[in-house]
Amino acid sequence: MCRAQEGEEQAQANERVRALLERQHDPSRVLGLSDGVFAIIITLLVLDIRVPELTGGHSLVEALREIRPSLTAFLISFIVAGMHWVGHRDLFGLIRRTDRGLVWLNILYLLPLCMLPFGASLLGRYEEEPAALRIYGLVLVLIAVMRAAIWLYATRRPHLLWQPLDDRQRRVGLALNLFPGLGYLLALLLAAAAPDASLVVYGSLPLLYFLSITVLRRTRDRNLEYTGFT
Amino acid sequence: MCRAQEGEEQAQANERVRALLERQHDPSRVLGLSDGVFAIIITLLVLDIRVPELTGGHSLVEALREIRPSLTAFLISFIVAGMHWVGHRDLFGLIRRTDRGLVWLNILYLLPLCMLPFGASLLGRYEEEPAALRIYGLVLVLIAVMRAAIWLYATRRPHLLWQPLDDRQRRVGLALNLFPGLGYLLALLLAAAAPDASLVVYGSLPLLYFLSITVLRRTRDRNLEYTGFT
Amino acid sequence: MCRAQEGEEQAQANERVRALLERQHDPSRVLGLSDGVFAIIITLLVLDIRVPELTGGHSLVEALREIRPSLTAFLISFIVAGMHWVGHRDLFGLIRRTDRGLVWLNILYLLPLCMLPFGASLLGRYEEEPAALRIYGLVLVLIAVMRAAIWLYATRRPHLLWQPLDDRQRRVGLALNLFPGLGYLLALLLAAAAPDASLVVYGSLPLLYFLSITVLRRTRDRNLEYTGFT
Amino acid sequence: MCRAQEGEEQAQANERVRALLERQHDPSRVLGLSDGVFAIIITLLVLDIRVPELTGGHSLVEALREIRPSLTAFLISFIVAGMHWVGHRDLFGLIRRTDRGLVWLNILYLLPLCMLPFGASLLGRYEEEPAALRIYGLVLVLIAVMRAAIWLYATRRPHLLWQPLDDRQRRVGLALNLFPGLGYLLALLLAAAAPDASLVVYGSLPLLYFLSITVLRRTRDRNLEYTGFT
Repeated sequence: MCRAQEGEEQAQANERVRALLERQHDPSRVLGLSDGVFAIIITLLVLDIRVPELTGGHSLVEALREIRPSLTAFLISFIVAGMHWVGHRDLFGLIRRTDRGLVWLNILYLLPLCMLPFGASLLGRYEEEPAALRIYGLVLVLIAVMRAAIWLYATRRPHLLWQPLDDRQRRVGLALNLFPGLGYLLALLLAAAAPDASLVVYGSLPLLYFLSITVLRRTRDRNLEYTGFT
Repeated sequence: MCRAQEGEEQAQANERVRALLERQHDPSRVLGLSDGVFAIIITLLVLDIRVPELTGGHSLVEALREIRPSLTAFLISFIVAGMHWVGHRDLFGLIRRTDRGLVWLNILYLLPLCMLPFGASLLGRYEEEPAALRIYGLVLVLIAVMRAAIWLYATRRPHLLWQPLDDRQRRVGLALNLFPGLGYLLALLLAAAAPDASLVVYGSLPLLYFLSITVLRRTRDRNLEYTGFT
Repeated sequence: MCRAQEGEEQAQANERVRALLERQHDPSRVLGLSDGVFAIIITLLVLDIRVPELTGGHSLVEALREIRPSLTAFLISFIVAGMHWVGHRDLFGLIRRTDRGLVWLNILYLLPLCMLPFGASLLGRYEEEPAALRIYGLVLVLIAVMRAAIWLYATRRPHLLWQPLDDRQRRVGLALNLFPGLGYLLALLLAAAAPDASLVVYGSLPLLYFLSITVLRRTRDRNLEYTGFT
Repeated sequence: MCRAQEGEEQAQANERVRALLERQHDPSRVLGLSDGVFAIIITLLVLDIRVPELTGGHSLVEALREIRPSLTAFLISFIVAGMHWVGHRDLFGLIRRTDRGLVWLNILYLLPLCMLPFGASLLGRYEEEPAALRIYGLVLVLIAVMRAAIWLYATRRPHLLWQPLDDRQRRVGLALNLFPGLGYLLALLLAAAAPDASLVVYGSLPLLYFLSITVLRRTRDRNLEYTGFT
């Protein structure tokens, strides 16, 4: 066999290996599974709004008052889930390839996320009980920790990204990924002393997060650093 | 460094920024999440048709009569959800890119939509109670309001669209998006005085909407204005 | 303005119209919604297998005997749903574009399909009651009717298909689409006289359908007519 | 008609047949359905964590202790489902086309998979009962058997694959596909004699599987054989 042929065969084998790796690292099914999980979670949340007793001429106001606790838990959890979906979409917008570690980190991120309906159910029933507020906070802290873990894992591996991030971008991103987690940790610790304050933190954090990203984007408009956060 | 090199590097950086924005504005995951939510909602609706008591030789007719209220609520809600899915598909058929505002408006549109199974469950149990009819109407009005908000937001930003709409097209589209909402508002207001009429409006609106679009499309066949509505 | 310019502008406008129609007729979201519904239905079916009472040293056999009726209903309904998903995939494998009618026919096809978990639940609880067997049969007949309606609608409009079918292919396809429906109609009519036979028909029809397609494919191997059926 | 024309028409007809087969064998809807099923299963699992009784000042620790059995069943089943999703993704990463047999084998693979929430529910309620542990093991063994069946079916048909596997690769893959199944079979047989040990096996197998693949990948880094397993 002549050298030119050998070289060509080697090139073809390399090309096959490259194509195989590209298929194995394609993130599309990871995103499909995650979107499915998010869609189911935000839809399952409503199952915990109990149908109120209406016989005997209840007014609309009385009916709404009866379902208020579970409705509050639904609204908070829906917005929390929405915020995390947007964050997941932003994060994977930077990611070009998924390797084995990233696939498993994403599954471990979905684990506490799937517990959100349970947390919401608990909160809808015992909204004043510290233990319920703590379990809810624990679920949210775990989601934030896993989110930060994916951020750290992916941004340390430039071959997984569409374009590498510099150290400053990575730190800013980590802070933004951890920020909701710290808020939830605070609410968790507040649960026993001030259940009402704890509930208010759970409800207002997505709003705060939203506002802080807006401010960051406004103040540094020419900079691309924060455009990755919706 | 010579000027030609600088120019080329600048061009490459611009190209990377453009590609990054294009990925961030890609609507595919927004549509994936929305389709998932719609699929789950129309499937969850059936969970509220209670299994009737059949022991003791019930006939088919008796069994169907027993489940009639929840079956009515299922059928109305299924068609309502179907109509909104078709409307969502038409709307996003015009949209080429999604920015931060559109992503969040879509999530806030899914919020009342996710409450549809709760509304249907309430209606299936208390179909004559004004409070139940009002909560159901409220959910439907909120969906219509959010739908109109997405329409207004997107059509005011030509860079988000495949092709810009003129003022007349925007007004017609807004009217078509608000029309079901006004009908539901009427049914909501009718709930106390005439519960039966209210239920009939909920059931017949999708049909009316369907017919009005058909008529619009027939009368202006050469016009592209209404082809965006299925 | 000179004529050449006018012609070019007209061509560009035509091109925009063509691209708009192509986007509106893209079947991808129709398939996404349908796959989501199928996935949810086959997964919800399991929710009706009641957890048996095991305290007091029940053996595996006793436990399985206790859940047998709901397990039977699950298995039959799972295979029925699987058969219809395969049929839906085959049918839409021929379809290139979806127009307004096809989108709505598909939604009306999903309507009885979404009632399958209800039917299975009824059957799991009252497997000997004629009324339960009839409602289950009614759901299956409605699915088959809607499936045949989509077949007739789509194959009569060659612009919706990848390649037109001749009359013979259309008739054979219609027969194959209606065949399960006729079987279910028979089982429905048998329900009062012979509940056991009715249940056997529900369980064995997917198998019969599977076998008949296999035979058709074997005997006419060079013919492409039946390759469209999995 | 001249010969050149005939030849061209024949070529066009062949091209149409090829395109038709390519569409029919496209695995995208098979993957869409499977991802939907996986997403629903891992999300449904949480529905079995019962909301604990918290009134009367339960502490967080007491509340968590109360839900421990169902939480254990949730965690084990979530990781099992995650492991199978990763395995499914790896397997179909090798597959280029799906034929009729593969489509049906995949549906029959989803059948025991859909029973996982039932098994988890049973385990969460009767974690010490041999019958519950056996039914859970039976479900897991059936999933592993179907997974091995898909592996055998697909790897024997090189036209379904992106690139053919040699005999050694096929045997190694079969072993890796069967390995969890054998572990589950062991746990199933252990159920009566040592319920605790059985539960430990269910919980630790995904970890063992994970470790064994890691070791395999480390020891043969230059070899592509095991890169197909995440």
